[in-house]
Amino acid sequence: MSLENISSNKLFGGWHKQYTHDSQTLNCNMRFAIYLPPQSQYKPVPVLYWLSGLTCTDENFMQKSGAQRIASELGIAIVAPDTSPRGDRVPDDPESAYDFGLGAGFYVNATQQPWRQNYRMYDYVITELPDLIEHYFPVNDKRSIAGHSMGGHGALVVALRNPDRYSSVSAFSPISNPINSPWGQKAFANYLGADRALWKAYDASELIKICGNPVPALVDQGSDDSFLSEQLKPEVLRQVAAEKRYPLNLRIQEGYDHSYYFVATFIEEHLMFHADYML
Amino acid sequence: MSLENISSNKLFGGWHKQYTHDSQTLNCNMRFAIYLPPQSQYKPVPVLYWLSGLTCTDENFMQKSGAQRIASELGIAIVAPDTSPRGDRVPDDPESAYDFGLGAGFYVNATQQPWRQNYRMYDYVITELPDLIEHYFPVNDKRSIAGHSMGGHGALVVALRNPDRYSSVSAFSPISNPINSPWGQKAFANYLGADRALWKAYDASELIKICGNPVPALVDQGSDDSFLSEQLKPEVLRQVAAEKRYPLNLRIQEGYDHSYYFVATFIEEHLMFHADYML
Repeated sequence: MSLENISSNKLFGGWHKQYTHDSQTLNCNMRFAIYLPPQSQYKPVPVLYWLSGLTCTDENFMQKSGAQRIASELGIAIVAPDTSPRGDRVPDDPESAYDFGLGAGFYVNATQQPWRQNYRMYDYVITELPDLIEHYFPVNDKRSIAGHSMGGHGALVVALRNPDRYSSVSAFSPISNPINSPWGQKAFANYLGADRALWKAYDASELIKICGNPVPALVDQGSDDSFLSEQLKPEVLRQVAAEKRYPLNLRIQEGYDHSYYFVATFIEEHLMFHADYML
Repeated sequence: MSLENISSNKLFGGWHKQYTHDSQTLNCNMRFAIYLPPQSQYKPVPVLYWLSGLTCTDENFMQKSGAQRIASELGIAIVAPDTSPRGDRVPDDPESAYDFGLGAGFYVNATQQPWRQNYRMYDYVITELPDLIEHYFPVNDKRSIAGHSMGGHGALVVALRNPDRYSSVSAFSPISNPINSPWGQKAFANYLGADRALWKAYDASELIKICGNPVPALVDQGSDDSFLSEQLKPEVLRQVAAEKRYPLNLRIQEGYDHSYYFVATFIEEHLMFHADYML
């Protein structure tokens, strides 16, 4: 495995860098971004993985969240992968819809044709990407994970299924119960097939029911999010967590919407939350 | 004069809003963005005007700088206009170059055909836009101005020529001596004509020589900015300011480039600087 550096910018005393690499998991060339805080020049630092939402790439969070300011103070690296496999040879939604195919990998391992050769973002995020990061960069083996919308779903699923690998998890506006949301149903029917029982392995509200080793979780949801009732359904997650006494802090933030302006407002609290478990 | 609101997002307890209006100065429909801090609900607040660089719109600074976090603490509104007149009826560079025409108004009042009907960003920024803002929003008459690259040039020129209207000025990576930079020479030759003596009215390094009523100025420049020596020439500004004992604090920031990652890193210090004069 090898990396190609394609950009480098200094910010808050550290470095934002973009790399490309040939992914064995996804069978395509992938780009990711990493923020290395100034502390990484002297010692290995923990890593927060950030999973973005529909239509995003590695760039949205890095350009819009302002997270690097806090990461530079705390000494935490941030890694942002892309949201799907990419490239001319990767199949896309026939209608190029924004909510399926390219830019919409939903952090699952697809089992159906023509998706299963490339759409394996779950394995990519859990194994190939951390292996790469821990091989090439001055980081230690402490990992946390966070995300927004589709990426909030991804972060919760990844942490709930791999509690030994992640210290903490947080999400903004996650798709909390995708098997009951139109976005999730469309994606899962295509990637995973018609058997809905198999979809539960990628549904945070279902996974909390069977989780034996909880990862501390923080979720923020804007009350004026236009996707709230139809797609996101945080009330389902809240109820299941309460029944299972899962350590979930789910906050409704009055007046905030689904945009990165919401993420920017509360990202400092999310990084402080992760720092409590990683540092 | 009337405004149409086209977007609204809550962030850091305040509101980011975009508006369009028919500009009498520019003879076209224009968009701008405003950040209203939470304090503006209870009292009029001062305004920082932000002028963006080549190719930008009102959105780049609002999405990437993180300035609203500090503005919400200090109680300062931020207004970001577009970087040129816009629309199908506005003439553009025949080759659609990024550094002239649409997205590249250079904050001058054009005197030449076919530009002079629309390309009057200097008057728009100094008069029409503040009149609109002070009529429609809960702001007081304290104004400061800042900008990046072409917008850093614009901010310095606007403040140097209108010291009674602005409390302070700051710039990131400004085009400090445009009459001696390829960007400035191309734009000024087209907008202002062949007589180079007339260009000096839009050159910060020339204006400092004749300024009788100085506005306090802060300038940050990255040492690894790829445009530094050919286009930006901060050393000219520094030398003229030193000769004239102008209150300019010009800082070279080691390792930083021309991107918004640089702006995001130091915007807090710029807002604190302006707060000293506006609050």
